[in-house]
Amino acid sequence: MNFTLNVLGTASALPMTERYPSAQVLDVRGRLFMIDCGEGAQMRLRAAGISFLKIEHICLSHIHGDHVFGLFGLLSTMGLLGRTSPLNIYAPESFGPILDFFRSHFGEGLLFEINFVKLTMSEPSLLYENRSVELLAFPLNHRVDTFGFIIREKMPSRNVYKSAIARHGLTLAEIGALKRGEDVVRHKDGCQEVIRNDEASYVPYVPRSYAYCSDTAPFPELPDWVRGVTLLYHEATFPEEMSAMAEKTFHSTTLQAARTALDAGAGRLLVGHYSSRFPSVDFFLDELRSVFPDSYLAYDGLRMEIPLVKHDGEEPVR
Amino acid sequence: MNFTLNVLGTASALPMTERYPSAQVLDVRGRLFMIDCGEGAQMRLRAAGISFLKIEHICLSHIHGDHVFGLFGLLSTMGLLGRTSPLNIYAPESFGPILDFFRSHFGEGLLFEINFVKLTMSEPSLLYENRSVELLAFPLNHRVDTFGFIIREKMPSRNVYKSAIARHGLTLAEIGALKRGEDVVRHKDGCQEVIRNDEASYVPYVPRSYAYCSDTAPFPELPDWVRGVTLLYHEATFPEEMSAMAEKTFHSTTLQAARTALDAGAGRLLVGHYSSRFPSVDFFLDELRSVFPDSYLAYDGLRMEIPLVKHDGEEPVR
Repeated sequence: MNFTLNVLGTASALPMTERYPSAQVLDVRGRLFMIDCGEGAQMRLRAAGISFLKIEHICLSHIHGDHVFGLFGLLSTMGLLGRTSPLNIYAPESFGPILDFFRSHFGEGLLFEINFVKLTMSEPSLLYENRSVELLAFPLNHRVDTFGFIIREKMPSRNVYKSAIARHGLTLAEIGALKRGEDVVRHKDGCQEVIRNDEASYVPYVPRSYAYCSDTAPFPELPDWVRGVTLLYHEATFPEEMSAMAEKTFHSTTLQAARTALDAGAGRLLVGHYSSRFPSVDFFLDELRSVFPDSYLAYDGLRMEIPLVKHDGEEPVR
Repeated sequence: MNFTLNVLGTASALPMTERYPSAQVLDVRGRLFMIDCGEGAQMRLRAAGISFLKIEHICLSHIHGDHVFGLFGLLSTMGLLGRTSPLNIYAPESFGPILDFFRSHFGEGLLFEINFVKLTMSEPSLLYENRSVELLAFPLNHRVDTFGFIIREKMPSRNVYKSAIARHGLTLAEIGALKRGEDVVRHKDGCQEVIRNDEASYVPYVPRSYAYCSDTAPFPELPDWVRGVTLLYHEATFPEEMSAMAEKTFHSTTLQAARTALDAGAGRLLVGHYSSRFPSVDFFLDELRSVFPDSYLAYDGLRMEIPLVKHDGEEPVR
């Protein structure tokens, strides 16, 4: 039941020796979602010990080189490794000719299907779901068409307190109804007894969620769109003193990222996509935490696990 | 007067954490020749402390991903760094549409000219020369059009022994003639005196040369084409036990690389482009040295300087 973010690159346009361009992999219970694929992503994947073949989805935020130049190498390597399972790529429309180019010049011998899903939404929209996880995309505010992503666990079915089963003598059918979120209504001797769902059952764990917001300038809808996310990754290309540059280039400063996290009620903020002007970004952290204390600096190779918060199954005393 | 090879990547098709795809930079007296540009080359360049803007020439041996996927990132970065000086790219004809694609999708704002020189030769041919250095290309024997490269110092003009100047009382005009490689002929009292060039002058240093042969299976002309090269880089994708695989894929084994070095009378052999089947290639070295003792294994980050062998200017006793 892991939910782990692997940060492969934290550079912005100009990579550095220890800071590769944007790329991440979120591991949700063994299913791998890659987000952005900057140059060198496949080498960073190897360094992190992540299996290329387990990547089922690649989400590309936008078609700037520092977010996509690792894709050709990764796709080629997947082919050489004998991949046959299909790969979903979610990207803005302008990715179409890039994929066509790759297929015609470097796609020889590729045995797996690439399903390209065009991103055109104007508000958060579902891209993919399975029994336990959903992937959504939403527009960001950058110089070209750019999208953010949310990957979240679905609300689990409810558990019934063992103590309630014993106390009420619940039948299997009644337990099933409670798990589905329904109340139990009993009729006996002309009387009606209601066992309320929220008193007899509980959510067994808190569904975890991750949102990726890069590259973007702040905009009014963003906090609402990522509201309550467990972990928010937001670009902080610049420190606060460079807010004019951030505005000009449609990027964010530390304080803007922190304010979005605060307004959204995020559980934790992680920033990256640092300008190469700052070989050390330690001072970014002070700025972030002055607004949003639970802020962290991403670095290449960071592995951040979101623990599962489980309900202990004990019925509260009422 | 440095002549230094920087090896940036030594992998073949599948890169590894410590072994990036093919890329090299040869520094000849401060002029930088890049050869191949596999993914991650720009990060390796930074790690090696090599200035991107000093690269004047990029030679692409062939259009397989592991030799070119770093180019888009490198060109973009050169653009972001404000490069204005033109860049020469020497590559097979099939590079044309790739460059066009880059220009139309990622070339916005690039302020420098890219001169693409198509490689079509069937034997060693001069691509570029300046006062002191020549660049040549020649065909290799791979699955697609592939070319090797030679970068060599030109033969320097001769120096005149100081002792000969004194002994013969040489005039400035006579010294000039000797430097140009001519004999000095004097007429005096009806007699002719000849001061032979090879007795009065000498080559001040041995011109250094580098040849790059990857990817290729062996072929008869190759030793002649790289004859006498100071440093020969030759692929050794496979150890000898995998000669059948080497033949099938148009690659070389250790012994084939070593035999080419031996037949060519190379000064030193350096191999790379290792199959990912072999995380350690130490045993390649024993195979190489069984044929050609002055063999070395390339590794990512290797910096190999070819020292200048100077004449001491002392006239030999005759």
